[in-house]
Amino acid sequence: MSKEITSRSDDYSQWYNDLVLKSELADYSAVRGCMIIKPYGYTLWENMQAALDKMFKDTGHVNAYFPLFVPKSLFEAEEANAEGFAKECAVVTHYRLKADPQNKGKLIIDPEAKLEEELIVRPTSEAIIWSTYKNWIQSYRDLPILINQWANVVRWEMRTRLFLRTSEFLWQEGHTAHATQEEALFESKQMLDVYADFVENFMAVPVIKGSKTANERFAGAVETYCIEALMQDGIALQAGTSHFLGQNFAKAFDVKFTDKNNKLDYVWATSWGVSTRLIGALVMAHSDDDGLILPPKIAPLQVVIIPVYKNDEQKNLITQKVNEIIKELKQLNIRVKFDDNNNMRPGWKFAEYEMKGVPLRLTIGARDLENNMIEIARRDTKEKITLKFENENFDFSIINLGYLKLNENINRKIEEDNSNIISLQNIIKYTLEDIQVNIFNRAKEFRDAHITNANNWNEFINLLDNKTGFVNAYWDGTAETEEKIKELSKATIRCVPFNAVEEEGACILTGKPSNKRVLFARAY
Amino acid sequence: MSKEITSRSDDYSQWYNDLVLKSELADYSAVRGCMIIKPYGYTLWENMQAALDKMFKDTGHVNAYFPLFVPKSLFEAEEANAEGFAKECAVVTHYRLKADPQNKGKLIIDPEAKLEEELIVRPTSEAIIWSTYKNWIQSYRDLPILINQWANVVRWEMRTRLFLRTSEFLWQEGHTAHATQEEALFESKQMLDVYADFVENFMAVPVIKGSKTANERFAGAVETYCIEALMQDGIALQAGTSHFLGQNFAKAFDVKFTDKNNKLDYVWATSWGVSTRLIGALVMAHSDDDGLILPPKIAPLQVVIIPVYKNDEQKNLITQKVNEIIKELKQLNIRVKFDDNNNMRPGWKFAEYEMKGVPLRLTIGARDLENNMIEIARRDTKEKITLKFENENFDFSIINLGYLKLNENINRKIEEDNSNIISLQNIIKYTLEDIQVNIFNRAKEFRDAHITNANNWNEFINLLDNKTGFVNAYWDGTAETEEKIKELSKATIRCVPFNAVEEEGACILTGKPSNKRVLFARAY
Repeated sequence: MSKEITSRSDDYSQWYNDLVLKSELADYSAVRGCMIIKPYGYTLWENMQAALDKMFKDTGHVNAYFPLFVPKSLFEAEEANAEGFAKECAVVTHYRLKADPQNKGKLIIDPEAKLEEELIVRPTSEAIIWSTYKNWIQSYRDLPILINQWANVVRWEMRTRLFLRTSEFLWQEGHTAHATQEEALFESKQMLDVYADFVENFMAVPVIKGSKTANERFAGAVETYCIEALMQDGIALQAGTSHFLGQNFAKAFDVKFTDKNNKLDYVWATSWGVSTRLIGALVMAHSDDDGLILPPKIAPLQVVIIPVYKNDEQKNLITQKVNEIIKELKQLNIRVKFDDNNNMRPGWKFAEYEMKGVPLRLTIGARDLENNMIEIARRDTKEKITLKFENENFDFSIINLGYLKLNENINRKIEEDNSNIISLQNIIKYTLEDIQVNIFNRAKEFRDAHITNANNWNEFINLLDNKTGFVNAYWDGTAETEEKIKELSKATIRCVPFNAVEEEGACILTGKPSNKRVLFARAY
Repeated sequence: MSKEITSRSDDYSQWYNDLVLKSELADYSAVRGCMIIKPYGYTLWENMQAALDKMFKDTGHVNAYFPLFVPKSLFEAEEANAEGFAKECAVVTHYRLKADPQNKGKLIIDPEAKLEEELIVRPTSEAIIWSTYKNWIQSYRDLPILINQWANVVRWEMRTRLFLRTSEFLWQEGHTAHATQEEALFESKQMLDVYADFVENFMAVPVIKGSKTANERFAGAVETYCIEALMQDGIALQAGTSHFLGQNFAKAFDVKFTDKNNKLDYVWATSWGVSTRLIGALVMAHSDDDGLILPPKIAPLQVVIIPVYKNDEQKNLITQKVNEIIKELKQLNIRVKFDDNNNMRPGWKFAEYEMKGVPLRLTIGARDLENNMIEIARRDTKEKITLKFENENFDFSIINLGYLKLNENINRKIEEDNSNIISLQNIIKYTLEDIQVNIFNRAKEFRDAHITNANNWNEFINLLDNKTGFVNAYWDGTAETEEKIKELSKATIRCVPFNAVEEEGACILTGKPSNKRVLFARAY
């Protein structure tokens, strides 16, 4: 194969880089730390966006757009937030270039075009948005404001990795304003649930919901909720965060409202975001040494059909049949591609679409056609089955289901289907559904097998070094101990899980009393 | 009404600003020259994006994302392009802030975090994209590349206006690469046709297609094609451009390919873009002194339903009926809102949705309900009709069409409808279609009445000053004359229309021979 990639066991990190490049999700750019999202990767992002955007709108949110730049004086208004992001800020200082008098054809900054006030390229938009909400909110009647924004943001990074950590990335950021603390808390938890729902049910990646410790909180937040996922190398990845901001930004920007009793109060806030980083999580959670494995719900292509032919006559016959199949699949909203490119051999195409993680591949040859046969191959399990139909419509009656060697779940779906005829397109539909479930279950099995309790320091280090994954351990609740553990083990508290059991225990580092286990891991 | 705006006749420019703010399309921001696109305006943009994006994909294009920043050395590689945009560039010079030692809680630029090479915030992406295409293109097999990007760009502006001219704006930019000149020329004209189709058939704004003169060309282009629209004040607005870039960028970035005969050649390029500026055109082309008038195809809301009631019992009965109506409308994919807010009176709501340009308003009172009646009011013509149906399902049999006092077009559609029953939802659907056509025809009538031939300088100036609009006049074809005309009249050559007739004439300024009339106007 021309597109070989490093295996996971040889070098997981290199495997990831190879895979992202070879599957054409993304490419490096000429700009330090910035990436190019290639069409295949961007289509994946569009599918993710569409699903998320619908969920946001179904929960009452609307989209808007705020400026890319934040004047420095606004940026520094909420001090904790400003301090948290100060080290990562790209700063615009000039607004004009001019011809370089020393160097024909080259340009230099025009020193006369220096900005009076520097502009920060937004690393996040709380400052610009809350300075605006001040003008939009007077009374409880103006609340809640439930706005989301799809945008690019810049956080300067010294060590970057495609999707996982880039200086510019794409994301959505929700910024809501509420009349009461309860409502804002409800909102921030609701949006965490939306994220968990999306990541589990569309991306097929299981997550653990919890709260961040004070150390790990978003700069300026009162409480940060998060979802944490586990990659195949046993390293954790934060997949989304939702922040309860209290009245911090309202106070920094003096945003007050009169409530129903005509009393003046500061407005309550939340913010929440997920980014193109999720694509990195998706790649690392499911894929293998042959390439991507993508969940059907968001895969750019769900089915690829590859013809095998010796001459034009054969190709034409196959094409005719395939066009019928495609028509049926499109009626089921299945994203399908027929790759009839003459320049590439079937074997090359098989490898190419495996690399790209297309969930189902159909192969049809001239002989197959005569016998009403087609091969279907699953990307997730690598299973291949040749289906032999009863007639040239590529379907069979329900009584002959014995022919089918599909799995239990698919057989059950076919039985539950009330039609007497089972067609190829229905088998494809059910198989795609089964792939979606299967890769989630596989990732969940791995994840569940990698949550381990540690009861003392040696166990803790041993688990992190050898078994990897999440380690559930008692912690004394202080920031100092958390810092010390991080320093010694390179593991951080990923979250205090919502479902953590209240019980007595002793901190793995200090032995001091602890009332619950928290979730540690080394993380991306 | 609380939301009064300046009338067009008093001050067209102020009318526009008032309208954009009061209809809640956009707001000023704390950042000089940058705007906030509010949820109502952004929903409009989303509808425009969806229609355009589908057209791009239907013509074989895919979306991708390239970095926001362009290193100065890449930016200056294509010299004409760099020179053209140099005066409008926001420049990032530093990547970190630090605490201000003089001023607690404030931040300053960290002088140690100066970039080795300045980064330009993209004013357009040819440079960053063609420096990338160099790595993607070796052979004719890699061509064509048909990529579009939805993105924000920054062009520093001294005098800004909401939507029409802002330092940051949202747009799409197509960047394609081709093996032959013919193919690139075909692409750039095809995309101009796509733009014209979109602007005329979705935005209901008639346009004239043509070529820009050398003076007005995109910096770095060999040929710029454009669509030009006319606003209600007789001022022209460039609504979209498509550029044939020749091999200029391929040469600047050394992008060569081997053709089928194994010969090495530079790649041919196009780029094309439309922006949120189109929203400004939409507002100015159709709206009136009471507010926006939006074409149904892209209006955020197509129908608003307003109940008139005296008590909860009446409101409940109305709500029950309205919910049935909404269900039917949603099945036709009609975007509908029921405004049953108790805090506002119907009169306030009427004015509010007129301001927001909702194409159709339905009003239903308790008495109406008893009599199977509902009032429908068109935003474009201000016509109001009370429909009396034969039964409580709000429909009537085809034989009783005489009751309907709708216009000819709608009556014809109803007759062509093959059902025996005409329902409220069908009447709404046909009326929305009629509104779309009507506002296009109205704008076209105005535009056509404002294209006038001028045969000498006095006529030319007189037309520009008094009649306004497009003036069709002979020009001697030189850049000097074009400059001089612009200086004396403030009018520019909007385009050399594709359909201009070849004929002998004398330049209005110099009297020198000319072979066709070109289209002059004062422009936004």
